[in-house]
Amino acid sequence: MAEESPESVTIALVQMRCAESKEANVETAVARIGDAARAGADVVCLPELFASRYPCQSEDHRCFDLAEPIPGPTSETISAAARRHGVVVVASLFERRAAGVYHNTAVVVEADGSTAGTYRKMHVPDDPHYYEKFYFAPGDLGFGSFPTRFGRLGIGICWDQWFPEAARLTALSGAQILLYPTAIGWLGDEKEPFGVSQHSAWETMMRSHAIANGLFVAAVNRTGVEESLEFWGASLACDPNGNVLARAPHDAEENLLVQCNLAQIDAVRTHWPFLRDRRIDAYGGLTERFLD
Amino acid sequence: MAEESPESVTIALVQMRCAESKEANVETAVARIGDAARAGADVVCLPELFASRYPCQSEDHRCFDLAEPIPGPTSETISAAARRHGVVVVASLFERRAAGVYHNTAVVVEADGSTAGTYRKMHVPDDPHYYEKFYFAPGDLGFGSFPTRFGRLGIGICWDQWFPEAARLTALSGAQILLYPTAIGWLGDEKEPFGVSQHSAWETMMRSHAIANGLFVAAVNRTGVEESLEFWGASLACDPNGNVLARAPHDAEENLLVQCNLAQIDAVRTHWPFLRDRRIDAYGGLTERFLD
Repeated sequence: MAEESPESVTIALVQMRCAESKEANVETAVARIGDAARAGADVVCLPELFASRYPCQSEDHRCFDLAEPIPGPTSETISAAARRHGVVVVASLFERRAAGVYHNTAVVVEADGSTAGTYRKMHVPDDPHYYEKFYFAPGDLGFGSFPTRFGRLGIGICWDQWFPEAARLTALSGAQILLYPTAIGWLGDEKEPFGVSQHSAWETMMRSHAIANGLFVAAVNRTGVEESLEFWGASLACDPNGNVLARAPHDAEENLLVQCNLAQIDAVRTHWPFLRDRRIDAYGGLTERFLD
Repeated sequence: MAEESPESVTIALVQMRCAESKEANVETAVARIGDAARAGADVVCLPELFASRYPCQSEDHRCFDLAEPIPGPTSETISAAARRHGVVVVASLFERRAAGVYHNTAVVVEADGSTAGTYRKMHVPDDPHYYEKFYFAPGDLGFGSFPTRFGRLGIGICWDQWFPEAARLTALSGAQILLYPTAIGWLGDEKEPFGVSQHSAWETMMRSHAIANGLFVAAVNRTGVEESLEFWGASLACDPNGNVLARAPHDAEENLLVQCNLAQIDAVRTHWPFLRDRRIDAYGGLTERFLD
């Protein structure tokens, strides 16, 4: 990477409840960006689609009214907050790109308010109460990462968390910190039998991405009950060895501040040189659906 | 897959100490195969290079004398034990393929003693006290899995555990159970500061392969101190949600028997349909070393 990296970056994971009103949610996000900056944050990451209740619990054409172009009113409000406080902000938005073309998109806003990069969710889920394929066209910008004043940031969004390919490609592009805006929760009748296992699997995947790729990983989730879903919070950050540096509670809002010593990436990758030993001559089958 | 799968398979993870004498180790392995079969095992997995002390702690040309052709005396002894007890056995061997061509190889022996498949370690490490690149040519058989009387088995060997690409390709080939013969331990002065984190990272990677791919995963490690390395045992198996089904102690031998309900694979993959949503159109970069 040509750009110079800072030695240490403090990231703020804004775990929030989302209200019915977009105005209220954006106001909350702006206030939390200010709080985080005053507390010493360099990079502030908001949860997935923070501007509204999670809109994909049913297939409802009226929900498309939540979408906005980028740039648009919400992205401009967030950019202004980033510039005002001198912090990088990762904002996940319901993007209206054209009539009939919508994406689940994250914007990386540089600390001067300019756009450092845009990522459109590549892996789009479709499961009961997560009907995202109805709303979002699959991302067409690929995987990547974006240099900012506070390190090179890679972005994944929620369902992307379950795909090691996404984390790997983001790491290979030079990401130092991989941030996942997230909206994941328990379905009512699944929580009791499967809730602990589901949460553990989710956290395990994030930790594994950090380990396999030798970078920092953070997931920023919403919390609170919305219709059938109890969003499980538990936003977390881990170091390049997969150690959990900090974790928010399941059921409360929090600005979780985590210091990332970027020099650790170099040390870890030298001691665990996985990137050296990848068998790139033998990975061609990864572009197939199934090999049997 | 064309073959019919049994509903449930019991795997035995043979966590063992390895002695100086090959004869003693092979005798132990044969005895442990018998014990496991009598206890109800269908599939018995031995640790990596069980026939000797871990030979790669230094670069010593005399260690090549440990290698054998396959088939060869050790593989034939193991095959006979598999046939005698009617169990599938996964045996990791130091393979002499030709003068100057050696591999770290695992043989999957069918329950009738025939060879169901051969896997040559694809990711070969080279780190202090794990000087495997000196001994082993990289595997040239690719990733895959082998139908047996007791399910379709995929094989990885130790360092392969750190590569999500290997687990994915093995899963895509139809594996139901992914078995990792292993030889991993703590270096003396690293155990105190990093030991817990290293072991946790290792286990996290195995669990993540189970989750990301919706299959059973087991790692079979040796235990005991050999020169500079304290092999950490802790052999484990996890279900397709990444839940740890059983775990051996760090410092004792054990035949760990674990029942795998193969129908769980179907249920988990239907509820967490990651294989449906892989962006195979966007994974081409995985065959590159780095993308920056």
